[in-house]
Amino acid sequence: MTLQYGLIGSAGRMGKEIVAVFNEAGHENVLSYDINGEQLQGVPDVIVDFSLPAAFAATVNYVNKYKVPLVIGTTGLSEEQFVVLKDLSTMVPVIQSYNFSIGVQMLLRCIETVKPHLKNWDVEITETHHRFKKDKPSGTALMMKNALGKEAPISSLRLGNIAGIHTITFASLGETLTIEHSATSRRTFAEGVLLSAEFTQGKGPGYYSFTDVIDAAI
Amino acid sequence: MTLQYGLIGSAGRMGKEIVAVFNEAGHENVLSYDINGEQLQGVPDVIVDFSLPAAFAATVNYVNKYKVPLVIGTTGLSEEQFVVLKDLSTMVPVIQSYNFSIGVQMLLRCIETVKPHLKNWDVEITETHHRFKKDKPSGTALMMKNALGKEAPISSLRLGNIAGIHTITFASLGETLTIEHSATSRRTFAEGVLLSAEFTQGKGPGYYSFTDVIDAAI
Amino acid sequence: MTLQYGLIGSAGRMGKEIVAVFNEAGHENVLSYDINGEQLQGVPDVIVDFSLPAAFAATVNYVNKYKVPLVIGTTGLSEEQFVVLKDLSTMVPVIQSYNFSIGVQMLLRCIETVKPHLKNWDVEITETHHRFKKDKPSGTALMMKNALGKEAPISSLRLGNIAGIHTITFASLGETLTIEHSATSRRTFAEGVLLSAEFTQGKGPGYYSFTDVIDAAI
Amino acid sequence: MTLQYGLIGSAGRMGKEIVAVFNEAGHENVLSYDINGEQLQGVPDVIVDFSLPAAFAATVNYVNKYKVPLVIGTTGLSEEQFVVLKDLSTMVPVIQSYNFSIGVQMLLRCIETVKPHLKNWDVEITETHHRFKKDKPSGTALMMKNALGKEAPISSLRLGNIAGIHTITFASLGETLTIEHSATSRRTFAEGVLLSAEFTQGKGPGYYSFTDVIDAAI
Repeated sequence: MTLQYGLIGSAGRMGKEIVAVFNEAGHENVLSYDINGEQLQGVPDVIVDFSLPAAFAATVNYVNKYKVPLVIGTTGLSEEQFVVLKDLSTMVPVIQSYNFSIGVQMLLRCIETVKPHLKNWDVEITETHHRFKKDKPSGTALMMKNALGKEAPISSLRLGNIAGIHTITFASLGETLTIEHSATSRRTFAEGVLLSAEFTQGKGPGYYSFTDVIDAAI
Repeated sequence: MTLQYGLIGSAGRMGKEIVAVFNEAGHENVLSYDINGEQLQGVPDVIVDFSLPAAFAATVNYVNKYKVPLVIGTTGLSEEQFVVLKDLSTMVPVIQSYNFSIGVQMLLRCIETVKPHLKNWDVEITETHHRFKKDKPSGTALMMKNALGKEAPISSLRLGNIAGIHTITFASLGETLTIEHSATSRRTFAEGVLLSAEFTQGKGPGYYSFTDVIDAAI
Repeated sequence: MTLQYGLIGSAGRMGKEIVAVFNEAGHENVLSYDINGEQLQGVPDVIVDFSLPAAFAATVNYVNKYKVPLVIGTTGLSEEQFVVLKDLSTMVPVIQSYNFSIGVQMLLRCIETVKPHLKNWDVEITETHHRFKKDKPSGTALMMKNALGKEAPISSLRLGNIAGIHTITFASLGETLTIEHSATSRRTFAEGVLLSAEFTQGKGPGYYSFTDVIDAAI
Repeated sequence: MTLQYGLIGSAGRMGKEIVAVFNEAGHENVLSYDINGEQLQGVPDVIVDFSLPAAFAATVNYVNKYKVPLVIGTTGLSEEQFVVLKDLSTMVPVIQSYNFSIGVQMLLRCIETVKPHLKNWDVEITETHHRFKKDKPSGTALMMKNALGKEAPISSLRLGNIAGIHTITFASLGETLTIEHSATSRRTFAEGVLLSAEFTQGKGPGYYSFTDVIDAAI
């Protein structure tokens, strides 16, 4: 399968990774949109949006115009914008996620797997990121707490240029179980986006998460 | 529920932990058997064997005599002795495992959870134990490789008095996922034996693993 | 060298470890003092105090009576009691420390070793202890910050029965350096006390830290 | 201080990092040499060589021609080539190292700091690198064993795209001390080269290691 894809946010750091990974996979970038405007060389099979909420209107226009699936990882969307996403999903497949890492999905699944058995164990979550990350805790740490389904302390460390380490430790009075994810390259997220874009082809309309993509990828 | 239990291997290090944990739970040791012979003070509801293959005949005698369930963690049993265990399991519940740690079971389940999604990722297993552990790799590391279902390098480290650390790391070109279990006390294994002994009560004949005990304990 | 030693706080958890370790080394417990009173069987060569501030007066009496060195790890002493300790040290060797672990001393020395070279690196300190430890951060974490000589965030985790893990990580934009100490047994502190008690023999009066003991032990 | 520098191996991955880091520091690349030949735009104050042994003759020519210091990190030099390096060092400063990471130097110094105190402790070294690294163990792991001054097992793990993690753990029967270095970017080595190039200015002839550079940088 070769895809012709449109990319909103092509000038950003994630945009460049997406182009690199999609090109390696043999897909063709036929539509780019960023702060400098549009570059159009063909009709896209799928729209990918990793940009800012300000570009959301352009994304919606493209999806409506071409009637093709949307993969969107843009953060900071408003509730109104999410309503529009849901609307689009009655017409085409829409895949929305804040984290397109396969490993983070696996971390969350491990938490789901063990939590019914470790109800009485202590739990601590730690997230470590580069010194430039201002917000605490990370969104992924909150996803971990959500998967755990109960309160847990989260420690946030800020160190050098660490791309992102997330750790959860369970402990009884005789043993500990630790599950840790570490991102070693931004490329990993682009690979999850690739998996998602390929997933959309031949799918009916619907609102999908990256979890659905992973489930289908076994 | 209060159990009257028999313990084969009562003088060993695990035997002493089992007595401590069972007593705390309100159970009563009515039969002890070790290198110094038998101490009998009542009729057991369950037999627990953490001893050596040489004591296996005594264990079989007790199970036959009292027609009560058996929980056995003795290592080094021969194939013939396993055949006898299977025979006993047609009459009473028999629970056999090499590792009664809840956390190790969780580690194995995490491996089962993620393996279908991480087929192309690299894998490394590491096990670290005290300097007195002669055999390499540990039995638990082999259980991990077995759960993984494919070949993986195992590194064995021997350090001080570390009770036991088992680690598995999966890695793609952009991320790593690590799952690690650490035993901080021998007590943890005794707690798994307790869970197993309690599990047997009211069960029909059958050959069970510690996994079955965990499944029932949710 | 065989020592006859007196032990203040003999009934406590550290007291029992000290007796075990000192006895293994061939030393003889000739004086015990705890909440139940005194047991005297000889004249001590050294007094060891791991008790509570309330027993401090008894300790001072023994040191004055026998004119022998003192090794003291009791926490919570008042400023007045420290003045008394300093006074005693003009007559006999006094060794005072809050942490008799050789490994913690090594951790502190590594911090001293690297800090002049890593002035612009980020730093994070983490300490993990059992769920029963109420105070945060640990005294050892504060010693680490003190050795570092500048402000650093300290994250405190409380998990199961972990005896104590202390970690410091330095990070630039291209690398990280982590130094971590983990206590696997209370015994380790008793071994530091043993080293200290042996260090006192033949020493002149003075106020010593465990660092001095370590320096002399190379 | 602004340097005009020459770079042998400018087309390689390290070469590109060096250009980026030197340019950020305000230095000017006036001489490049790689497989495509020479590009000359001025007279260098220092020659940097991160290439292959095959380019060594060109490097020697440049150093002789301009009588300027040399910083060399090229691996695989023959004994004869090292003799030539020593010769050059009677005329200009020559800095040779296999690892220009400040953090690795700190790791080695921590080993030096603790080793006289931990003679009886167990030791294990672990090195983890990306799947493409064929040789085992890594050169840095050997430097660690050398700093330790005694035999120690080295475990080598190969995982994903990990840039390089080196760990040494010391353990007694009651505690462990772990020192770990992790490279998060190739940039870190280029920064060590920068430090070395700046170190050479105003120095007399001599054969220096990266350790000398670090010592001078406090």
